[in-house]
Amino acid sequence: MGSPESATAFAPGHVTAFFSVHRHEDPVRAGSRGAGVATSDGVTTTVTPADETTVTLNGAETVIEPVERVLDTLGVTAHVVCETTLPLGAGFGVSGAAALGTAFAADAAVEMGHSENRLVTVAHVAEVQSGTGLGDVVGQARGGLPVRLDPGAPTQGRLDGVPATGRVEYLTFGDLSTAEVIEGDVTDLSAAGARALDSLRDRPTPARLVDAGRAFAREADLLVDEVRAVLDAVPEASMAMLGRSVFAFGTALTDAGYDASVCEIDHAGARRR
Amino acid sequence: MGSPESATAFAPGHVTAFFSVHRHEDPVRAGSRGAGVATSDGVTTTVTPADETTVTLNGAETVIEPVERVLDTLGVTAHVVCETTLPLGAGFGVSGAAALGTAFAADAAVEMGHSENRLVTVAHVAEVQSGTGLGDVVGQARGGLPVRLDPGAPTQGRLDGVPATGRVEYLTFGDLSTAEVIEGDVTDLSAAGARALDSLRDRPTPARLVDAGRAFAREADLLVDEVRAVLDAVPEASMAMLGRSVFAFGTALTDAGYDASVCEIDHAGARRR
Repeated sequence: MGSPESATAFAPGHVTAFFSVHRHEDPVRAGSRGAGVATSDGVTTTVTPADETTVTLNGAETVIEPVERVLDTLGVTAHVVCETTLPLGAGFGVSGAAALGTAFAADAAVEMGHSENRLVTVAHVAEVQSGTGLGDVVGQARGGLPVRLDPGAPTQGRLDGVPATGRVEYLTFGDLSTAEVIEGDVTDLSAAGARALDSLRDRPTPARLVDAGRAFAREADLLVDEVRAVLDAVPEASMAMLGRSVFAFGTALTDAGYDASVCEIDHAGARRR
Repeated sequence: MGSPESATAFAPGHVTAFFSVHRHEDPVRAGSRGAGVATSDGVTTTVTPADETTVTLNGAETVIEPVERVLDTLGVTAHVVCETTLPLGAGFGVSGAAALGTAFAADAAVEMGHSENRLVTVAHVAEVQSGTGLGDVVGQARGGLPVRLDPGAPTQGRLDGVPATGRVEYLTFGDLSTAEVIEGDVTDLSAAGARALDSLRDRPTPARLVDAGRAFAREADLLVDEVRAVLDAVPEASMAMLGRSVFAFGTALTDAGYDASVCEIDHAGARRR
């Protein structure tokens, strides 16, 4: 990373509490409405321009389709090095964070001079086209407790936020397939997501975010057994969409005896490092 | 500050590089287009509900009209304690940061449950109605290098950002009256501001922000002698609107021998502490 032409960016993790699916033939307009939490545990991405593209995640060579799509869109080939302490495929938006980090770091490394909206849009489109997510990128770009009032890239829709600060705890039991859920029949899920968003807009507080997420998980029939057991034991915890994962604010999970990971709400969103 | 019902928020400083004035009878829609820098030197505000409102700034009792207006709008009376290392009345958005911090901290102290957009709008309207600023609040809420593509509160207009990170230096020689400039004839100023915004949108980089700001200061005839002297000596520096102040990225001012204050770009924008 000592190369003069490499650049580094950070994007927070993003836990979705609830969402509704909005398909559109234009990927800039496709996405989800919903709300979640941007976490200080995130993905740090270093981009070094090179003749051929390689991608590593925590030291192992891998393929992250949204990252490749971001590079293709920006016309860059590079060594992309992603580092994260977040669990993979477990509802923390690792692919979205890697895509965003790649966009911000590539822009800086090659001095392309794109705006933030442009870079976020490139990453959002890459995520939608890869089928790996619908709203994480937009939430990760904003930071805090992002509320996506409209679907699509930030140039398309309104965002708001739930004022909050402090500690976030999370637990994971493994992965759920995002593509399987968001490409299936989402009529009931989206109706539940719309109700959850109405409930949160009525009182945008962290406690309401959790309550709306719990109702959504139940109504959308997304609860898996391990998650259901934690939610039954901890009324302040909700499910991280779409993973076999649980999150809570403050110390609710550790107070209940769970060996939870601990981080903070990330207020800043994706940024150069 | 130890009271259980007090709450604290932080808002970054905001240096405006250039702007155009957009008057509107609805203060939610009034404001400015333009761009600037959110700084890690900002205002920390603690709100403690009380029978009568008092406001102190760095320990001295004072009147900050936008702060009083925010409390009136939210229906709160409180002791408001603002602390800042920023120079006052010198183009760093202290009144806007105090208004924003008061909104976020009052919301938390009284558990009102307003959304971020609502709180930012309340602070923006308070600043516009007080004649103390047009765009600082919106920039301070976003953080980074905010670009205000449309005037007005965040519910009204599009925002973008210039990707950047790192050090900001600034110097001040004293105050300029914001009200005198923004309430006068702003035809030429706004035309220069619109040209500067076009130039930045063409290439949204920190260097272009500085260049567009320098051209704006000259064309809008806002340069004062002390500022002109620094800008002549340091081509990487621009004027902070509206103050007898200068800012630059990196080490441009200290490299030229000036005894500049040093802080960082603040990526997070206004937030609870």
